[in-house]
Amino acid sequence: MRTELICVGTELLTGKLNTNSVYIGERLAALGLDLALVTTVGDAAADLENVFRPTLSRGGIIIVTGGLGPTFDDLTRETLAAVLGRRLVLQDEALEDIRQKFAKRGAVMSTNNERQAYLIDGARMIANRNGTAPGQIVEIKEGGAVVILLPGPPKEMQALFESDVFPYLRQFETAVKKSFVLHVYGDAESAVDDKIRPIIEAERQLESGAVDFTILAQATVIDIKTSVKGGDEMLVDETLNNLRHEFYEVLGDHIYGEGRQTMEGVVGELLFKHNKTLAVAESCTGGLIAHRVTNVPGSSRYFKQGAVTYANEAKIAMLGVASETLERFGAVSEQVAVAMAEGMKKTAGVDYALSVTGIAGPAGGTADKPVGLVFIGLASSDGTTAHRFQFTGDRTIIRERAANQALDLLRRELLKNEKQKKK
Amino acid sequence: MRTELICVGTELLTGKLNTNSVYIGERLAALGLDLALVTTVGDAAADLENVFRPTLSRGGIIIVTGGLGPTFDDLTRETLAAVLGRRLVLQDEALEDIRQKFAKRGAVMSTNNERQAYLIDGARMIANRNGTAPGQIVEIKEGGAVVILLPGPPKEMQALFESDVFPYLRQFETAVKKSFVLHVYGDAESAVDDKIRPIIEAERQLESGAVDFTILAQATVIDIKTSVKGGDEMLVDETLNNLRHEFYEVLGDHIYGEGRQTMEGVVGELLFKHNKTLAVAESCTGGLIAHRVTNVPGSSRYFKQGAVTYANEAKIAMLGVASETLERFGAVSEQVAVAMAEGMKKTAGVDYALSVTGIAGPAGGTADKPVGLVFIGLASSDGTTAHRFQFTGDRTIIRERAANQALDLLRRELLKNEKQKKK
Repeated sequence: MRTELICVGTELLTGKLNTNSVYIGERLAALGLDLALVTTVGDAAADLENVFRPTLSRGGIIIVTGGLGPTFDDLTRETLAAVLGRRLVLQDEALEDIRQKFAKRGAVMSTNNERQAYLIDGARMIANRNGTAPGQIVEIKEGGAVVILLPGPPKEMQALFESDVFPYLRQFETAVKKSFVLHVYGDAESAVDDKIRPIIEAERQLESGAVDFTILAQATVIDIKTSVKGGDEMLVDETLNNLRHEFYEVLGDHIYGEGRQTMEGVVGELLFKHNKTLAVAESCTGGLIAHRVTNVPGSSRYFKQGAVTYANEAKIAMLGVASETLERFGAVSEQVAVAMAEGMKKTAGVDYALSVTGIAGPAGGTADKPVGLVFIGLASSDGTTAHRFQFTGDRTIIRERAANQALDLLRRELLKNEKQKKK
Repeated sequence: MRTELICVGTELLTGKLNTNSVYIGERLAALGLDLALVTTVGDAAADLENVFRPTLSRGGIIIVTGGLGPTFDDLTRETLAAVLGRRLVLQDEALEDIRQKFAKRGAVMSTNNERQAYLIDGARMIANRNGTAPGQIVEIKEGGAVVILLPGPPKEMQALFESDVFPYLRQFETAVKKSFVLHVYGDAESAVDDKIRPIIEAERQLESGAVDFTILAQATVIDIKTSVKGGDEMLVDETLNNLRHEFYEVLGDHIYGEGRQTMEGVVGELLFKHNKTLAVAESCTGGLIAHRVTNVPGSSRYFKQGAVTYANEAKIAMLGVASETLERFGAVSEQVAVAMAEGMKKTAGVDYALSVTGIAGPAGGTADKPVGLVFIGLASSDGTTAHRFQFTGDRTIIRERAANQALDLLRRELLKNEKQKKK
């Protein structure tokens, strides 16, 4: 089945990255459906018409994102209806849903928003929990085509794609294509590359064309994606499992998770599993670790508290760091990292306390303590350790790397205890 | 002059972000040339042909990136030549250049690479310092069209665009194009639309075609982009200034910033300007506000400390919230928000303390206190206030909205004090 994507939005032609096409391309691939064409067009009726007409004449699955908002420049609904020669029909259910959303936030619904309750005649509505524009699935019998309208904001689009569009498209699934993504931490990209190269080379020599590898390095995290496709699902699964096993053999616990798993999610699972609690004391990461840990639903079961101690006075008052320690070694030091972690562990009465103190830049670096220098402490019932790291990158990247490193330290500590218990 | 971009590469249809379209869109805009359409197509001759034919028939400036490599799946040159009915001609200069590049790295040139030395008959070659595929400018006299071929790798594409394409396109520069982006908070998208509609309608009725508006809503933040183009730079500036003034007239301090400004950056500037300090006490936002505030370089000048008090015990121990208040009103209540803000202000000895307590979900909601209910407190020398908000969306969106709202509350407080001082 031919599949095309049309992304509507002038902002996509004038400097905004199109992330929807990436998401949809990947999800379609999972069904063995390949995108033949992505067209990006601005919010102008004439341009939209020029794109809709030839695309509809080619038929197949046509996904359209964007232009479903309430404002004057949202023209997808109206233009597509005109091109299809269909009416727009007010959908009471959609109108009521929009009204309730406004009522819930205590806001008055503008008449503009009524436009969002209109569906192309014959369309099936897809409810949008995160916004006011519903999606639409319009089956065009004559041409053997189906047009699927989705809102442009990525979160809304993704939610609708998963809840309704992906299940709907299953009927067109031709080949099985499955993949897994391994998340790796604690090795440079080239070191990971050296370790996995024999696996990839061996697969390449088979020249099956069925297996595909992609490696993506972001900050200090490396993702390895392996895709296998074929007509026989059992064979695909077997190949996938063998390759996964081979990667674990060479990378071991450098692999911290798979797929949608995150470092903070994995750490959270380990804490919950072993009934342990966590608190964090952050200086240069400024709340990023607490934010990531608490982003995980259910994190209140193991995360107790965090302190963002930017000022020295805060380190003293909130964590009980001795002012002599700060004066003697400086705020960015192994000793202060240790004192922060111990202070937080005691105050919060938790099993584990992480601490981070460093220089995220751009200013504040010296020859002795350059930008990127970070000390990470971990206090537990086994005592307290602190490690020195030198990260590269700009302020945002240094903070991200420090947060990853702190969480990974805790992950390894939890894994170590898990192994010792088993012995 | 109509301008279209065609991006060739199967990887762009299966998960790779298209950064070339962002770069080219922005650079064309600087010449007053608007991209009408971006088409992304895979490395298949039939698909390429299906894209080239209608694009060429529409005429104008056509930029094609990608598919100029040495391998079997690089088909841009050959397919375009066939569609144009022109021969491919071996360019000795290009061949020699490729040979030398291989010799320089001590590598043997594959015969595949010879393909890269062929130009479409009549094309002007653009030398590629960073790679082996030269660019091509093909003027199609008959249709009044010009086709510009550029290599796909962003570094190579950008270098060729700047060295030859941008100067070449200057002949089509019709206008100066300038724009500004306003960031708006505190109104629903439709309410903003109602307020700015008269400005936009008045501009539309002039039918100048010189002014363009784009509205983008993300979470609770709305961006309004206004672009003006014209032959007379002074007139363009004047129109821009008038429109900016009109937007400020109707939106007032709902506009929190422009261009690259962020909410946390604006709040930080106001704090620094008035020599005020800040601390935050977060429950459901879990460190997000502290993280955003400290993401701003130099934030240590005004940000003193933050507490992430997830557990009730943390609210008691770190902020001095009375356990009776927690028991009587619940952790998610106006009273606890007030107590958190006041406790943090006192502990940290700051001018302003923000507090957030709410239910981010997905679990934890009740009929009385549903998911999305958030109380935000603000303590200052003028006393303490707390406000109730009901946000929609998933956990991440609710947290983001709560953080935006808290920062905006502080921004308005700082603006209010600024105005009172002036009086």
